[in-house]
Amino acid sequence: MNDEAPILLREDRESVAWLTLNRPRAYNALSIGLMTALQAELESIGENADIRAVVIGAAGRGFCAGHDLKELRANPSRQFYESVFAHCSKLMLTITRMPQPVIARVHGIATAAGCQLVATCDLAVAADDTRFGTPGVNIGLFCSTPMVALSRNVGRKQAMQMLLTGETVDCATALSFGLINEAVPADNLDRSVEALAAAIKSKSSHVLKIGKKAFYRQAEMGLEEAYRFTGQVMVENMMARDAEEGIDAFIEKRPPVWQDA
Amino acid sequence: MNDEAPILLREDRESVAWLTLNRPRAYNALSIGLMTALQAELESIGENADIRAVVIGAAGRGFCAGHDLKELRANPSRQFYESVFAHCSKLMLTITRMPQPVIARVHGIATAAGCQLVATCDLAVAADDTRFGTPGVNIGLFCSTPMVALSRNVGRKQAMQMLLTGETVDCATALSFGLINEAVPADNLDRSVEALAAAIKSKSSHVLKIGKKAFYRQAEMGLEEAYRFTGQVMVENMMARDAEEGIDAFIEKRPPVWQDA
Amino acid sequence: MNDEAPILLREDRESVAWLTLNRPRAYNALSIGLMTALQAELESIGENADIRAVVIGAAGRGFCAGHDLKELRANPSRQFYESVFAHCSKLMLTITRMPQPVIARVHGIATAAGCQLVATCDLAVAADDTRFGTPGVNIGLFCSTPMVALSRNVGRKQAMQMLLTGETVDCATALSFGLINEAVPADNLDRSVEALAAAIKSKSSHVLKIGKKAFYRQAEMGLEEAYRFTGQVMVENMMARDAEEGIDAFIEKRPPVWQDA
Repeated sequence: MNDEAPILLREDRESVAWLTLNRPRAYNALSIGLMTALQAELESIGENADIRAVVIGAAGRGFCAGHDLKELRANPSRQFYESVFAHCSKLMLTITRMPQPVIARVHGIATAAGCQLVATCDLAVAADDTRFGTPGVNIGLFCSTPMVALSRNVGRKQAMQMLLTGETVDCATALSFGLINEAVPADNLDRSVEALAAAIKSKSSHVLKIGKKAFYRQAEMGLEEAYRFTGQVMVENMMARDAEEGIDAFIEKRPPVWQDA
Repeated sequence: MNDEAPILLREDRESVAWLTLNRPRAYNALSIGLMTALQAELESIGENADIRAVVIGAAGRGFCAGHDLKELRANPSRQFYESVFAHCSKLMLTITRMPQPVIARVHGIATAAGCQLVATCDLAVAADDTRFGTPGVNIGLFCSTPMVALSRNVGRKQAMQMLLTGETVDCATALSFGLINEAVPADNLDRSVEALAAAIKSKSSHVLKIGKKAFYRQAEMGLEEAYRFTGQVMVENMMARDAEEGIDAFIEKRPPVWQDA
Repeated sequence: MNDEAPILLREDRESVAWLTLNRPRAYNALSIGLMTALQAELESIGENADIRAVVIGAAGRGFCAGHDLKELRANPSRQFYESVFAHCSKLMLTITRMPQPVIARVHGIATAAGCQLVATCDLAVAADDTRFGTPGVNIGLFCSTPMVALSRNVGRKQAMQMLLTGETVDCATALSFGLINEAVPADNLDRSVEALAAAIKSKSSHVLKIGKKAFYRQAEMGLEEAYRFTGQVMVENMMARDAEEGIDAFIEKRPPVWQDA
């Protein structure tokens, strides 16, 4: 692999889109170019009903080391900085809002905006020698956007420890903090991600879309409003054909055939 | 036990109301009938100053498998679906808002709205072979109302794993996620629940009522507002006789005698 | 030590302010006097650019047993109670809002408002034989203000268990709940706190101030608003000299020299 290869790879296998950040020599730093490419692929996937799950992984020795510091220092203007963080926040919101579940496939290191990317994905599986961190404070740039995703995944004391000390935590610690779903030997990483994607792609994609959207919306509501909202979501879900089919199949002890309306 | 027995049992023992979901052949599915009976008992208990704690358990091989799918499919109308989810949400809000602490006594399985019921109770003790899940996605009906309670108990990644894969987690995992307070051998389940109920019923029920109400209200406030609100709650609590008595008893090293005003 | 000594000690060592609650015979109960002294020191430190981290520890057998019950009972008026809880809430908000990170150095017991103090500090290290609790319910005074901080650190079921039963939890449990960052043998407590303070004081204090403030503000926002806000924080941070210097030093593989503007 070299930097003349595309900075983002995509392979679709059995209804799952596997995206690979491909700037290995730069630890897959999120340059404007890489963020733009990732944004475009995710938007395209979001409109593609044939894709039922998305995996974001990376080439080389680590998952992602965050923003591209050389690019930032080469463009020292407020306008450029605003562009960088606007791209980044839009990217994170897109992952949260797209209909398909997104799984982070993590290895090596996931730091700063790379850790944010892990926290933002709906699910995350990591090789058990991965290290996670928000070390911006070490270079005078506090991980203020990464903290948004981090603090919505892990407890306050644990988030503050990562943010204030800038020290990385190992994979077992990240698991205990709730930042990832699973830690597996590096050799099993693809197999574990595939198993997770397989579990997801067997569902109705229409139903996954309903559920993912409802999850993040209700998370920002008070309890009573959340029940009013999700109660209505349940009714709409029941009115769709996949619920009828799914329940009938369950009662009749046969596999469901989704319409994915 | 058979289905001619009442679908909800209640036994009051030493100021604790033990409710038992009693549709064992249907894994205690929450039919309209069962939800209505549970709603009525909880409302009655809420107005009964003699009851100081509530236990919700279940008969048969599992705690609760969620909504009654056969009943849902037998009544395929928007009106019926709205009625089901309105009953369910009201029931969950009632548990949260009633003055007495509510303990879930869980065994076997707690899935979909059954898992929601566990998440909604103030405390939960489970037999260590219980499995928990939100498998609605498997039958085309995403667990959108259960997610409200689930995601207010466990981290986002962990909630999403349960919701998107539909797979159950074992009791140790549920404990590590924060979904339950205690996992005990099945033989010790009643003893453990009794011990927890005993710890609670020794308190002033007036004070428990103040505290439980304040807990869920402050949870939806920003930090400054939460302090303004709870500061006022503390002052009102201090003005009540049970605080005077409790503090005096503590200083004088004697047991308090609650007035439970 | 005796009660004629100052009720609050302060020692500044290498840019770290070590505060010691010094009412050992009263388990460092937060009397109006002690809260007033602590408030004054924290406000003074907040304006002192030479101090880069704060440690709050305590003298005697325990960290802090909460409010001063004898003082409360000796002044049985609404006006006095309002004053006590207003002082306490202001103190907690001050810790959250002051620019420097605040580390709780905990030993023995941390109960009621003492547990709240631990939960409120940005970070907490505890001797591994410390016990934590919110036992107000035992004396008829529910820990309603402590719950604000507690429930923003630990899960709902776990917070409710502590609040409703009044029972203390041991240090390993507090760690698993997320209430503290580290549990260490008592003999290593100062060394561990020093190491944490050392990690923090090596950063730019200007950057720590930006980050700490942003953390607690974004925690109360919805996702989109949080990204809009922190995106702007990142841009401002990039415009400050310490980010330029930090990134240059990182690229040039040399230690940064902070301006701390």
